[in-house]
Amino acid sequence: MKRIAESTVRRLSLYLRFLEDFEKRSIGTISSDELAARGSTTSAQVRKDLSFFGSFGKRGLGYSVPELLARLRQILGLDHEWHVVIVGAGKIGAALAQYRGFSQRGFRIVALYDSDPEKVGRTVDGLQIRPMSALTAESHHHRPDIAVLAVPATAAQEVADIVVAAGVRAILNFAPQQLQVPDTVALKEVNMAIELEGLSFALTNLRM
Amino acid sequence: MKRIAESTVRRLSLYLRFLEDFEKRSIGTISSDELAARGSTTSAQVRKDLSFFGSFGKRGLGYSVPELLARLRQILGLDHEWHVVIVGAGKIGAALAQYRGFSQRGFRIVALYDSDPEKVGRTVDGLQIRPMSALTAESHHHRPDIAVLAVPATAAQEVADIVVAAGVRAILNFAPQQLQVPDTVALKEVNMAIELEGLSFALTNLRM
Repeated sequence: MKRIAESTVRRLSLYLRFLEDFEKRSIGTISSDELAARGSTTSAQVRKDLSFFGSFGKRGLGYSVPELLARLRQILGLDHEWHVVIVGAGKIGAALAQYRGFSQRGFRIVALYDSDPEKVGRTVDGLQIRPMSALTAESHHHRPDIAVLAVPATAAQEVADIVVAAGVRAILNFAPQQLQVPDTVALKEVNMAIELEGLSFALTNLRM
Repeated sequence: MKRIAESTVRRLSLYLRFLEDFEKRSIGTISSDELAARGSTTSAQVRKDLSFFGSFGKRGLGYSVPELLARLRQILGLDHEWHVVIVGAGKIGAALAQYRGFSQRGFRIVALYDSDPEKVGRTVDGLQIRPMSALTAESHHHRPDIAVLAVPATAAQEVADIVVAAGVRAILNFAPQQLQVPDTVALKEVNMAIELEGLSFALTNLRM
């Protein structure tokens, strides 16, 4: 398969949400124009995005909402369950553990870890915080696919090495620290300061 | 000025961090190769990214670390203070209010708002939670540039309309809801579920 740009994947996630909304409103067919209008993009872009994954829709008839929904779920890997471990039970980690959006999309949080003995044993949303030292052994049982890192920057690389060694193949990193991971591991970073800098850049340009 | 891709701006933020690290280690000059190696990119990409903003460095001599740092801060709008309001004092909002990375970059949190009377009046990291109904009037005084929305999806558009009317020109949205804002307002969205879907997509492709 061709390498697909991250921006394309993000638009697929958005199309999925629009289609779910169309389905709720019992709309059976939609055009690329309608999808484009919802996503603030062009119908050419919608057709191009979808064309990576085969042929959809019929000329002049548009896309079948249930068919395109099923196919998008499959493309995005949302047609089965992923096991997620969260490392770091501070504010961000705890907020993520309680976020309903994950389970709705088939991301099952199988464990929450922290290295702080004060936190270990407490319960967040029905999930008992486990000691970091137990992660490797427990991963034989949990078989995590994805690790969410909500740890301090100074600990992030060490934790990444541990979860990769434990078999995790995708990491969502909230620590403000660039991670080195093998090429076979997918990595995404959410860095609040960098998001704000993007806005600062935009504000500065708007002022020019 | 040409429209600059979001991915370019993100790389500028990363270069800034690398240069800060070089400065701490008292390194006076660096080559585009060295910057590229740190950022897992190519030296051609580094030169292209920087060329948008004028001419830097001398052929064969590389870039002066302090000069490039100063210029990057200016390009990113980090050479002066931005006023930030956070709306929503739940877990995410409270975590953001306490995040040191913001103030280090000149993002000053001037106020934290919530519509829940139970939360109003409490203090998060020295900041008293103010009632949402006070935002418009208090903005005459605070003059917020940026609003961070950490509110439920159902409230997000209404809150966006309020902050835009109050003079905010940039929004960082944590609510899982697409927002409509005027073209003159910069908008960034952080959607945890969409980040995880990007990983799910990558995992699915690695499996193919």
